[in-house]
Amino acid sequence: MKAYILENKERFLNELKDFLRIPSISADPFYALHIEKAADFVYDELQKAGMRKIHKFYTGGNPIVYGEKIISEDLPTVLYYGHYDVQPADPIDLWDSEPFEPLIKDGKIVCRGASDDKSQVFLIIKTIEVMHQLNEQVCNVKVIFEGEEETGSQSLERFLLENRSMLQADTFVVCDTAMPKINQPALITSLRGICYCEISVSGAPNDVHSGMMGGAIINPLQVLCTLISKLKDENNTILIPGFYEGVYCEKNENDEHVNQFPENLLPFLSGEKGFSLYDQLTLRPTLDVNGIWGGYSGQGPKTIIPAQAFAKISMRLVEGQDHNEIAEKLSVYLQESAPEQVHLEVKQIAGCNAVITSKDNDAFMAAKLSLAKIFGKAPLHTKIGGSIPVVSLIKEYLNIEPVLMGFSLDEDNIHAPNESFLLDNFYRGIETLIDFMQVYSQIFSSKEEIEILIKS
Amino acid sequence: MKAYILENKERFLNELKDFLRIPSISADPFYALHIEKAADFVYDELQKAGMRKIHKFYTGGNPIVYGEKIISEDLPTVLYYGHYDVQPADPIDLWDSEPFEPLIKDGKIVCRGASDDKSQVFLIIKTIEVMHQLNEQVCNVKVIFEGEEETGSQSLERFLLENRSMLQADTFVVCDTAMPKINQPALITSLRGICYCEISVSGAPNDVHSGMMGGAIINPLQVLCTLISKLKDENNTILIPGFYEGVYCEKNENDEHVNQFPENLLPFLSGEKGFSLYDQLTLRPTLDVNGIWGGYSGQGPKTIIPAQAFAKISMRLVEGQDHNEIAEKLSVYLQESAPEQVHLEVKQIAGCNAVITSKDNDAFMAAKLSLAKIFGKAPLHTKIGGSIPVVSLIKEYLNIEPVLMGFSLDEDNIHAPNESFLLDNFYRGIETLIDFMQVYSQIFSSKEEIEILIKS
Repeated sequence: MKAYILENKERFLNELKDFLRIPSISADPFYALHIEKAADFVYDELQKAGMRKIHKFYTGGNPIVYGEKIISEDLPTVLYYGHYDVQPADPIDLWDSEPFEPLIKDGKIVCRGASDDKSQVFLIIKTIEVMHQLNEQVCNVKVIFEGEEETGSQSLERFLLENRSMLQADTFVVCDTAMPKINQPALITSLRGICYCEISVSGAPNDVHSGMMGGAIINPLQVLCTLISKLKDENNTILIPGFYEGVYCEKNENDEHVNQFPENLLPFLSGEKGFSLYDQLTLRPTLDVNGIWGGYSGQGPKTIIPAQAFAKISMRLVEGQDHNEIAEKLSVYLQESAPEQVHLEVKQIAGCNAVITSKDNDAFMAAKLSLAKIFGKAPLHTKIGGSIPVVSLIKEYLNIEPVLMGFSLDEDNIHAPNESFLLDNFYRGIETLIDFMQVYSQIFSSKEEIEILIKS
Repeated sequence: MKAYILENKERFLNELKDFLRIPSISADPFYALHIEKAADFVYDELQKAGMRKIHKFYTGGNPIVYGEKIISEDLPTVLYYGHYDVQPADPIDLWDSEPFEPLIKDGKIVCRGASDDKSQVFLIIKTIEVMHQLNEQVCNVKVIFEGEEETGSQSLERFLLENRSMLQADTFVVCDTAMPKINQPALITSLRGICYCEISVSGAPNDVHSGMMGGAIINPLQVLCTLISKLKDENNTILIPGFYEGVYCEKNENDEHVNQFPENLLPFLSGEKGFSLYDQLTLRPTLDVNGIWGGYSGQGPKTIIPAQAFAKISMRLVEGQDHNEIAEKLSVYLQESAPEQVHLEVKQIAGCNAVITSKDNDAFMAAKLSLAKIFGKAPLHTKIGGSIPVVSLIKEYLNIEPVLMGFSLDEDNIHAPNESFLLDNFYRGIETLIDFMQVYSQIFSSKEEIEILIKS
C-alpha cells in the first residue's frame, strides 16, 4: 500500500493541483460554471477510483456528487463526506501568491480551498483508488461531496431526506476539520449548532425627510438597535426568555486556554461572565450580530428617517438546544419587545443542532487507533465552537454516529488569505483512512462473529 | 412690468425648461459635467439679465456662481440665494415621466429640481432681467447660486468667510422654501439647525469566525446598537448629558396639527412625550439614526463577527443649541459609554445652528406687503423643521437678517418622484420679487430721509 502511494505520489499531487485550480466559489453566482466544473472533476475522479454507482444530484442548488462501491453485504459501510466548494478569495491583496494557482512552499500547498476542503475531499478519493487498485475489499464505501458547504448547505437537508435508504451506512466520516499542530492528530467530539436569523423592521412606507418629520416619526433603525441591545446584558448573558433551557455547563473561571488564544485578539476578549474562555468558545451558546444595514451609508450627510432596517443574527447552540425552538423564542421575544408602530419579521435562514459525538462506538475506536499508528501520537479529543450542518443532519435523519477526523492544521488559514495544507498530511491522510477501514472492518467482523456465537 | 412678463412668458418658460433638462445632481460624481453645465447656464443667464460682475468661485467643491449689479451706494442692497444642484432622481421607477424632461401637467411643470430649487433660482434671474430691461433702478442686487445645497453646502462656509466684504448687503432673501397651499403665501420664521455625525466602532483587526471566536470576542455592531439604544429613553427624550441646555419650549400636548399631518404617516407617530406634534416637528430638537452599516448584508448566512460598525446620526437643533457643542457632547457621552475593548470615533460631517428670523425689519415687512399684494392674502408665519445651512451661516458671518420667501408648494414632492412647480407661481414669484424690491427701497429711503431730518 505504501509502495503504491509512493509510486503515484507525483501524479496524485498534479491531480490535486488541477482540482485546486478550479475557483469553485459557491457564494458568488459569477463562479457557477466553475462549481459545475469542480463537481464534474470529482465525478470523473470517483469513476477512475473504481466507484461503481456515481451520480450528480440536483436538489435546487449546486450538485451533490454521490458515489458508492458496495462489495458485500457482510462488510461494514463507511459514508464519507467532504465539500468541493470554497470560500471567496477576498481580500485578494493579502495573498502572497495567486489564490487559485497552487504553490508548494515549506512542504505546504498554498491555494484557496487547500485545507477547506479540497485536499481532504481528494485524499478520500485517492484512498478509494488505492484500495481499488490493491483490491483491498474490507469495507463498502459511500461518499457525499457537496458544493454548498460555504453557503450553509441549503440543499443538503432535502437530499438526505429524499435518499435515506441509499445513504444508510454503519459510520459517517467527515474530513473537514483540523489538527491543533503537526503530528498531533485530533478527533472532534463536540460541535456547536447554529440558529441563523434575519430580522427586518419596517416603519413608514418610504424614507422620510429627517427635518420635516424628525421628532415625530418612528425610526426602524433605532428600534432595531434597541431590540438588539436587549438581547444581552452587561455580563454577556443572553436575555431571550428560555434561551438557556436544557443547557448545562458548570461555571468555571479558569482561563488557561488564554495561552493558546491568538495573541492579537486578546485585547478584544469580552465573553460571558463566570465561564472559562474555553467553555465560552465551545460549550456555551452565543449570540452575535453578523450584519446590520438600513438607511444611508454613502458619502456625506443624507437626512432621512429610513423606512426599514435589517440585521443578521446568529446564535451558536449547545447540547440541549433545538435551533427551531431557539428561532421561535427569539421571534417571540423581539415581537413582544418591539413598539406597535413597526412591523417586525424574524426568519431563520439556516440552522442545525449541536453534536456531541459518541466516543464508544467501533468507528471512533478504529479512527483513534489508526491516527495514533500513522501520526505516532494518540489523537486529542477536541471540542470546537463552529458548526458543520451535515453532521447534525446525518445524525438526526439517518441516525449514524459521526467520526470527525480531519488532516488540516489550525495554522492553515482557512477562510483567510494564504490558505494552505501540509502535503505530508495529504499522504498520511490516505494512509490513515486505509488503515481506519481495515481496523474498522476487523472490529466490525469480530463483533459479528461474537454475535453469531452468542446467537448459535 | 406685467406687460413685459406677459410678452416674454413663452421664452421664460423655454429657458426654464433648458435649465431643468440639465441633470445637475450633486450627490453623484457621475454628473460632475452637468454640474458645470448648470453653473455655466446660470452664469450666462445672469449676463443676459444685465448683471455687471459675474464670477464662478471654486472653493474645493462645485462652483458658486456670484453676480452683482450695484447701481448706487444710496440704494439698499438685496442679496439673493438659490441653488442650481438637484437631488438624484431615484427611485426612477416611481416617476410618471422622464425625471429630466420637463412636462407641463395641470398648470405645473414636472421635473426633478422644478421646485427645489431651479424654478426659484430662475425667477430670481428673470426678476433681475425684467428690472434691467425696464430700467427699474430701485435696489442694488447681489446673487449667490451654489451647487452643493443637496449635499450639505460644504464649500459655502469658506466662500462666505473669504468674501465677507463683497457679500455685504442690507437684506438676504432665500427663495428655497414652500407655501402651504395655492394662494396662501408664507414667510418662514424658524428653521431648525443640524448636527450630523458619523460614528465608527472598531474591535478586532479583522472579521473573525463567529463559530471559532463566538462567545469570547467583542462585537462592534452590538456595541454600536447598545450605544444607540442609550441615546433616547422610552419617552423619546434624548439622553445625551447637557443636550437640552439652553432649549426652551413649553410642554403642550395639544395636537391639532395632526389634522394637517400626512395621513399615511399617522400610524408611525412616535414623538417626544409631553409635546404637541407641531412642537415636535419644529421647536423641539431631535435625534435620528440615518444609516447603519457593518458586517455582512448579502444573501444567505455568513458567520462573522465584524471588525467594524458604522452609523450616521443627525440631530435637529433649536434656538439655544450650538452644533459644535452638541457634537462634542455626543462624542463625550458615547466615549464614556463604550466598553474599553473597542475604539470609537465620532466625527461631525455637517452642522449649522437654528435660525429664528427677525420679524420687525424692513425687508420682512416689505416681503409681507408684496406677498399679500400679489397673492391676495397675508403670508403665514411658518416654522419648519428642516435646516438651510446658508441661512445660519449668513446670519452668523455677515450679520444679515434673512427673509425666507419661497414659491414652491408643500404638495410639490421635493426630494421625491414627480417633483413639480406651479407655473403661475413662477410668474407671480417674479412679480413678487420686483414689488418687494420697490417697496423695500421705498421704506429704506424714507428711513434714510427721516435719519437725515433727525441729524440736520
